[in-house]
Amino acid sequence: MSAYDDLCTLARERALLSTTAAVLGWDQETCLPPAAVPYRAAQLAHLSGQIHQLATSAPWLKALEGAEADPPTDPTAAANIREFRHHFDRATCLPRKLVEEASTASSLGKAAWGEARERSDFSIFAPHLETLLDLARRQADLWGYAEEPYDALLENYERGARTSDVVRTFDSCQEDLASIASEAVERSKSIPNDLLLGHYPLADQQTLNQEIAESIGFDFEAGRIDTVTHPFCTHLGPHDTRLTTRYDQTEFTSSLFGVLHEAGHGMYDQGLRESEHGLPSGDAVSLGIHESQSRLWENHVGRSRPFWERWYPRATELFPHLAKVSLDDFLRTINRANYSCIRVESDEATYDLHILLRVDIERRMLRGELQVADVPKAWNESFEALFGFPVPDDAHGCLQDIHWSMGGLGYFPTYSLGNLNAAQLFNAARRETSIQSAFDNADFQPLLTWMQQNVHTPGSTLFPQDLMKQATGETTNPAHHLAHLRERFLP
Amino acid sequence: MSAYDDLCTLARERALLSTTAAVLGWDQETCLPPAAVPYRAAQLAHLSGQIHQLATSAPWLKALEGAEADPPTDPTAAANIREFRHHFDRATCLPRKLVEEASTASSLGKAAWGEARERSDFSIFAPHLETLLDLARRQADLWGYAEEPYDALLENYERGARTSDVVRTFDSCQEDLASIASEAVERSKSIPNDLLLGHYPLADQQTLNQEIAESIGFDFEAGRIDTVTHPFCTHLGPHDTRLTTRYDQTEFTSSLFGVLHEAGHGMYDQGLRESEHGLPSGDAVSLGIHESQSRLWENHVGRSRPFWERWYPRATELFPHLAKVSLDDFLRTINRANYSCIRVESDEATYDLHILLRVDIERRMLRGELQVADVPKAWNESFEALFGFPVPDDAHGCLQDIHWSMGGLGYFPTYSLGNLNAAQLFNAARRETSIQSAFDNADFQPLLTWMQQNVHTPGSTLFPQDLMKQATGETTNPAHHLAHLRERFLP
Repeated sequence: MSAYDDLCTLARERALLSTTAAVLGWDQETCLPPAAVPYRAAQLAHLSGQIHQLATSAPWLKALEGAEADPPTDPTAAANIREFRHHFDRATCLPRKLVEEASTASSLGKAAWGEARERSDFSIFAPHLETLLDLARRQADLWGYAEEPYDALLENYERGARTSDVVRTFDSCQEDLASIASEAVERSKSIPNDLLLGHYPLADQQTLNQEIAESIGFDFEAGRIDTVTHPFCTHLGPHDTRLTTRYDQTEFTSSLFGVLHEAGHGMYDQGLRESEHGLPSGDAVSLGIHESQSRLWENHVGRSRPFWERWYPRATELFPHLAKVSLDDFLRTINRANYSCIRVESDEATYDLHILLRVDIERRMLRGELQVADVPKAWNESFEALFGFPVPDDAHGCLQDIHWSMGGLGYFPTYSLGNLNAAQLFNAARRETSIQSAFDNADFQPLLTWMQQNVHTPGSTLFPQDLMKQATGETTNPAHHLAHLRERFLP
Repeated sequence: MSAYDDLCTLARERALLSTTAAVLGWDQETCLPPAAVPYRAAQLAHLSGQIHQLATSAPWLKALEGAEADPPTDPTAAANIREFRHHFDRATCLPRKLVEEASTASSLGKAAWGEARERSDFSIFAPHLETLLDLARRQADLWGYAEEPYDALLENYERGARTSDVVRTFDSCQEDLASIASEAVERSKSIPNDLLLGHYPLADQQTLNQEIAESIGFDFEAGRIDTVTHPFCTHLGPHDTRLTTRYDQTEFTSSLFGVLHEAGHGMYDQGLRESEHGLPSGDAVSLGIHESQSRLWENHVGRSRPFWERWYPRATELFPHLAKVSLDDFLRTINRANYSCIRVESDEATYDLHILLRVDIERRMLRGELQVADVPKAWNESFEALFGFPVPDDAHGCLQDIHWSMGGLGYFPTYSLGNLNAAQLFNAARRETSIQSAFDNADFQPLLTWMQQNVHTPGSTLFPQDLMKQATGETTNPAHHLAHLRERFLP
């Protein structure tokens, strides 16, 4: 056994523990009786402790140093050693006390945020945000960064990304995004918003969701769909990927697009190489790439004409009152643009504006230019400037998202990176004419195969931007997303 | 910190791991995608290894020896130290190789049994049963026993029980059980068996089950009911007790009695002291006591007249076609006796005969008096002698139960012990006239309170037979169960 083999064995043991924690987490979101929450927290804390201990242990370091001293020639192994080193250094440079403080601050922060949002009272959350911000700064200082502390946080979600590059990318398209959104909203005013309202029985929605998810390639032998309040997708180990959605019986598209979105995430996880499970080469590379897959299937596939030429007859079979809505009207309705205060309810045309606002605010907080107490005012001013109308209250403003309360500063940029990457990957795939013509005939298998080969299979062996370059010929370029939005909303 | 405190801390850490394994096990039975089974086995094997390692570790032994050398005066602590020693000795006297062999034999055995039962072909399972029997004998020799190897296996399920005592108890009532069964079946022939057939929508069955489980005291803040093929109840930690059931839309009583049975198990688990969680004093004492609680709520409560005087109007509300069936006819139908080949489909009057048959066969196997190859013949002869008609095939005979395939020799007696204990505890509780009169008015809370105080709260601080003596004034005595059966089936 080489030192590299030892390292892989330890990493696979770590994966047994982390996937076990993932099962406990999934169960907590979907099944856990309310009174059992505190004990579940104790189980998860114990597992986290074990994972941290193993991944910072002397045997781990010995295997890592041994592998570095005598590196295998295989490029996958080399990439794994690079990633193992990165994660080891980040895990060991934080003192245990800080890790525990951060964990406690996140638990308390989430609870306070929930209450603050419910009462729309920012003052309940403000002291927690102070603490979380202070912790984020201290973590960033220990992790180190090239240009600004935000780099160190972004690194948690987007390996190798530099804040200045991401911001330059966003800045370069902000004006176009705003003008497309504005015109799309204006044009959409003529589209009625109640055309699809009716009664859509739960069981029939589930049937349609299942048939569609299966047909686009989500493997139900290795996954399932459950119902929750806040939908997500989680990967619990090889052959175990679980989607969740929620249902509204007065219309069927929100659960369906939710399932398409989460199935996009799920098919990425199902596309990772089983032989590499537990190693970086078997791990998803970044949230910005993960989100590209969910947005691809939700928007580029799921809101396209070929998709609905294939599926609208089936929907009409299950929901006979749709027969009175033509396919054209249906397509116009599901691609209607509208300004909303709430990010998660936003359409494609306006979504990115929500992200740009958040990224700007969290960077200013982190640099100390914006005080926590001034966040609501800054949010409301930015919102009105971007969207043209005021936020009614903080629950619909700076308190709407859970991310900061969990200590997740640096997470938001990955949503828009996902949108940009989705359009770019979609265009790259369709340069192969067989993929384009299959797509036009609602055969999405060749598109999935391309994504599996170019996006899923590499795991974390490449940095996200290197993966984009290898798959599409260029790093993330907003031109594709802008062109897509124009074609869809301003034809 | 005393050595005893150290021991409790280690035991609570062990409980974090074992409850985590229990969550994974529950998920496997209820949710796991088929392709994920092998990885789940790896996760569970790793957790088992960790648990075994911790519970046989040097720190554990040191704390145990320290606690024994300087025992706390508190009787609960003394009982815990006694149980810790017992479990430590049993865990450490088996070589690791044997533990692994047993685990593998059980996995392979279950798979082979499934196939053998499906094809009704004993020869597929026979070599596995040889291996499992050999392993059981080797384990029994290492664990040690007072009179016969079966004692050492029974100890896994029924702490402190001696086979000769259990068999003497069963022998003393076998003739009466057989004659009650025979007369009950004869009398039941005049009761039609199709009176309740109809359409019972799933959702309405779930409503009724939930209302009833809640009303008898199952706490849904700390538990839930799910749907599976093979119903069970599992305790995943403090405030997390999960029942399962299955549904037949042509009649509602089988899912309901299933829920009452599992809720009986569940309320025992919910009645354990949270402060003692992870310690023997917070653990259920034995399967024979556990089963007493499930049979109490399923049969003594759930098939009683007061219970249905309370609930039949509600059932009729949910299932209007029941209105044509009188309460008297309904009660006769749910208390109809009938010989069945299958244990799990048996009624109260005939159930114990199935157990006596199994106990006799597994003792003869273990003593070497019955060869594996001769099991089907022995089973079929015993069955015909007890039930008066032949078994159609091995799938309905010696292949029907999973227990032996998991290595669970010694488990079966606990089912009949549960029946005997249920009747005896029920009688003891009703000696308090307030409990009897509340029961007659379908108020079962005082009965539950009595069970909590006398059966649940002690945990494993008493041996099962000492608990029975303390709660009822005598050790397990079949007279109560026989009297109950006579009153119910031969009034």
